[in-house]
Amino acid sequence: MSTIAPPADPESDARVKAVFDDIRATRKSDFINNMWLWLAFDADLLEQTWRDVKAVMATPSALDPLVKEMLYIAVSVSNGCGYCAHSHTAAARAKGMSDAEHADLLRVISLAARTNQLATALQVPVDAAFDRTA
Amino acid sequence: MSTIAPPADPESDARVKAVFDDIRATRKSDFINNMWLWLAFDADLLEQTWRDVKAVMATPSALDPLVKEMLYIAVSVSNGCGYCAHSHTAAARAKGMSDAEHADLLRVISLAARTNQLATALQVPVDAAFDRTA
Amino acid sequence: MSTIAPPADPESDARVKAVFDDIRATRKSDFINNMWLWLAFDADLLEQTWRDVKAVMATPSALDPLVKEMLYIAVSVSNGCGYCAHSHTAAARAKGMSDAEHADLLRVISLAARTNQLATALQVPVDAAFDRTA
Amino acid sequence: MSTIAPPADPESDARVKAVFDDIRATRKSDFINNMWLWLAFDADLLEQTWRDVKAVMATPSALDPLVKEMLYIAVSVSNGCGYCAHSHTAAARAKGMSDAEHADLLRVISLAARTNQLATALQVPVDAAFDRTA
Amino acid sequence: MSTIAPPADPESDARVKAVFDDIRATRKSDFINNMWLWLAFDADLLEQTWRDVKAVMATPSALDPLVKEMLYIAVSVSNGCGYCAHSHTAAARAKGMSDAEHADLLRVISLAARTNQLATALQVPVDAAFDRTA
Amino acid sequence: MSTIAPPADPESDARVKAVFDDIRATRKSDFINNMWLWLAFDADLLEQTWRDVKAVMATPSALDPLVKEMLYIAVSVSNGCGYCAHSHTAAARAKGMSDAEHADLLRVISLAARTNQLATALQVPVDAAFDRTA
Repeated sequence: MSTIAPPADPESDARVKAVFDDIRATRKSDFINNMWLWLAFDADLLEQTWRDVKAVMATPSALDPLVKEMLYIAVSVSNGCGYCAHSHTAAARAKGMSDAEHADLLRVISLAARTNQLATALQVPVDAAFDRTA
Repeated sequence: MSTIAPPADPESDARVKAVFDDIRATRKSDFINNMWLWLAFDADLLEQTWRDVKAVMATPSALDPLVKEMLYIAVSVSNGCGYCAHSHTAAARAKGMSDAEHADLLRVISLAARTNQLATALQVPVDAAFDRTA
Repeated sequence: MSTIAPPADPESDARVKAVFDDIRATRKSDFINNMWLWLAFDADLLEQTWRDVKAVMATPSALDPLVKEMLYIAVSVSNGCGYCAHSHTAAARAKGMSDAEHADLLRVISLAARTNQLATALQVPVDAAFDRTA
Repeated sequence: MSTIAPPADPESDARVKAVFDDIRATRKSDFINNMWLWLAFDADLLEQTWRDVKAVMATPSALDPLVKEMLYIAVSVSNGCGYCAHSHTAAARAKGMSDAEHADLLRVISLAARTNQLATALQVPVDAAFDRTA
Repeated sequence: MSTIAPPADPESDARVKAVFDDIRATRKSDFINNMWLWLAFDADLLEQTWRDVKAVMATPSALDPLVKEMLYIAVSVSNGCGYCAHSHTAAARAKGMSDAEHADLLRVISLAARTNQLATALQVPVDAAFDRTA
Repeated sequence: MSTIAPPADPESDARVKAVFDDIRATRKSDFINNMWLWLAFDADLLEQTWRDVKAVMATPSALDPLVKEMLYIAVSVSNGCGYCAHSHTAAARAKGMSDAEHADLLRVISLAARTNQLATALQVPVDAAFDRTA
């Protein structure tokens, strides 16, 4: 069940087809996952989202591609996004994440959520030593 | 302002002193940040929290120490924990995070939050290809 | 699957029937969606919730009814509430939301989530110009 | 206090200056709020963020500019972003939001958060009638 | 700093005065905390909010008043609301919460946040045994 | 659907079997719910998580066991964790939570979410009277 009906034949729209072609070329795979099929209900939203995902996730940058996928998982889980937890865990695995790394990721993100609660509950004041504007 | 008064002389409690000594030894620094001073209002909570933080963050594991700090930042920011954003950004820098890596981290976590909203708003169904139990 | 069993014959309770009758009259429809069937497990909670929803969402006020539905979607998506994303997207459509407005809504709420992460990650200080108490 | 030190002389960087000039021109105001000064620590992140904010918030689209600001507030508040609550409430006021509209906005977003909790706590199943893919 | 200017002389408005009088009578105290002073910018919003808070928090019900305050803290911390963490921790203390109970509360809510992350990250399927609608 | 494949025969691993035996002994039940089956993909993560859950939730402490379950529900719902809402509502019922207590819990946590939004939207300043460090 979803809140929109994805287009029945998305690639009949030339703008959608161009994005899908670029997704396939960038990922070197014919698989277009549901996120893109659903976003295709609005070509502009699809183009804008893919442009950003490609620029950040599929372009060499300061961080390692697998690290970026794990950061993506960390945010997605914190935001309770089930779809995103699924798609980015699959992506991290495709980029080589081992079971040991996956377990380590879970240890870190669950610990972080735990101490976040403590700091917020206590309203701990920020140490002057942490201030970069000083 | 905070919701508890941290103990005036925390190390007069032997259990607190033992934790603080271990923090100093583990981090090779005399600096005890406010989080630990505040948690010292309950020795058991302090011991339990430090034991977990040490086990996950200060023990060699599958993931690189800097990657673990960046994951910690990702969760802390997603949870809106200002104190944690401060303390773990400082920790990441102490472990060598460059400005370029910091900016890349911000690009990834802000993009993730954006697409999380889209997947949740559309209630995109999870692709069968992502199911590991199949 | 749900965490309570909704009552098998909710309208046998006069208080529940009165609320359901008012929902039908207010919405000019016989359809009672699951949210109300489930809340009927406690007549007081049902009455209180419907009273508030009716007062805010079904009573003319400063904001346009469709704008109110879109705000409801924005909050529901940010809170990761799948049921609410579904029910309020349906409500917004019933009040005339076009596909173009839906896509625009998605653009705004996903952008907001993105810049929220940036402001929190950087802990940007609030500009004096924004302070209304000055 | 913040997690980075914003550049002392941001407009000495030509890319930053170009963005700031465009912010001033687009908003017809000399005021550059802190968000942009802080993002200027990385010219690419600044450019990318401004490009998106301008495209979504400062370009005519299906939704009214004030409605877009109120949606931005709804998400920012739900995510607990204090800075964003401040900056977008100021922006909404600048676009004409009255006190009555502000109060109505608060009624809707606080009600939404309330019923989100109820639907999630009860794990209410989505009504078949809401499914657009049917 | 806040996003509205609270009224300079709130009790000059008879509706506001009536609410404030009821707050003082209900709580048997002259202290009106800032939340109510700020909400006084809109008499309707103030009345509606106080009516609900009084009905739920200041009226005998199935749960103990202190338990209700601790639940309020749990939600407020999870939502990252600093003001609410402060006000409800103070309220819990006024209702007798001991340091040991406070520490126990923190242990539970921080553990919950930790295992929430794990369940969401793994997307653990709900056990049939938990389904109340079966 | 889930993001990992739980082990087919988890108790063939002696560390997993030891944890499962302790869960059964502690809970006086043969039922092992899915959370533990899934966590068994990494023995260390399973051990660490069970150790913490047992220490906090299955060990006598300052707060009543049922109160602790209700706090767990409050956090789980606020974080949008469906699995956790299910498992801890079932646990609370097993510990004696009545329908009236359940409804009261829902009233409190939904009210809290509502006023959290108001306090954050208004950025209400914390009253000096709430500061415990003064």
